[in-house]
Amino acid sequence: MPLRSRLYAAVLALIFAVTLSAYAQDDQLKTASKQELDIIKVLVAQEDAWNKGDLQGFIQGYKNSPDTLFVTHQVFRGVDGMLDEYRHNYPNRAAMGTLGFSELEVHGLDERFAVVIGKYHLDRGKKEGGAADGIFSLVFEKTDQGWKIIVDHTS
Amino acid sequence: MPLRSRLYAAVLALIFAVTLSAYAQDDQLKTASKQELDIIKVLVAQEDAWNKGDLQGFIQGYKNSPDTLFVTHQVFRGVDGMLDEYRHNYPNRAAMGTLGFSELEVHGLDERFAVVIGKYHLDRGKKEGGAADGIFSLVFEKTDQGWKIIVDHTS
Repeated sequence: MPLRSRLYAAVLALIFAVTLSAYAQDDQLKTASKQELDIIKVLVAQEDAWNKGDLQGFIQGYKNSPDTLFVTHQVFRGVDGMLDEYRHNYPNRAAMGTLGFSELEVHGLDERFAVVIGKYHLDRGKKEGGAADGIFSLVFEKTDQGWKIIVDHTS
Repeated sequence: MPLRSRLYAAVLALIFAVTLSAYAQDDQLKTASKQELDIIKVLVAQEDAWNKGDLQGFIQGYKNSPDTLFVTHQVFRGVDGMLDEYRHNYPNRAAMGTLGFSELEVHGLDERFAVVIGKYHLDRGKKEGGAADGIFSLVFEKTDQGWKIIVDHTS
């Protein structure tokens, strides 16, 4: 699905979710809606970049800071280290497979920070390492360059 | 080590770390110091409660809210569900073993939120499931009841 259609689908899903939640918690509606949408867009753009084999584009979802943390079985620091790690684990387009995020939940903390949890599925041929599934929690910061991931814990 | 000694040791370690970092980033010193100390105390109290077999005490480190998230291989919501999960996985004192946190890092986001990453080691007899190791990232919120964990991702 091209980026525009994906965004359209994400926006529709979000409007539905927000409409539903409006009945539950009217007071938090306005803040949540814009923040959630802006953050979901970052993740949709990441999926899209990954699925074009564009690691440099994928990494744009992260804050370009030495303090950015990537937690897996160990802790990686800074976007440069993270990019090296990705290039090591996914040396070519086939190894990258097709990435899909699901069950995304945006939990706004305040105007500047939010937590997102979700799941990923990597569709990939057996020869390239096979399919993979996992769960992640992300901390997002609203920077001058838009919402960026500052902590990624993927397991 | 009793709680008071553990706190004392944690405070000493923190003063040392903060003194060192003062040379590196003088401007962030004051805010970081008090926040870090308060948060480290919560984790030390959690270790202590766990190692007394006091799950109810351990769970006090979490915000008592249905929105509190515990992410492992799946997502658990709310402190009650988390307590059930802990009771299921650690049915008795022997199964709980001896818990130790290490490599704790407090990353303050603002006055009200902070991220902590760290590692845990569970010392436990083979019959009770054996030793376990893992890594965690926590989001803390400063509530009226002090700093509490609102998102725990342990893997």
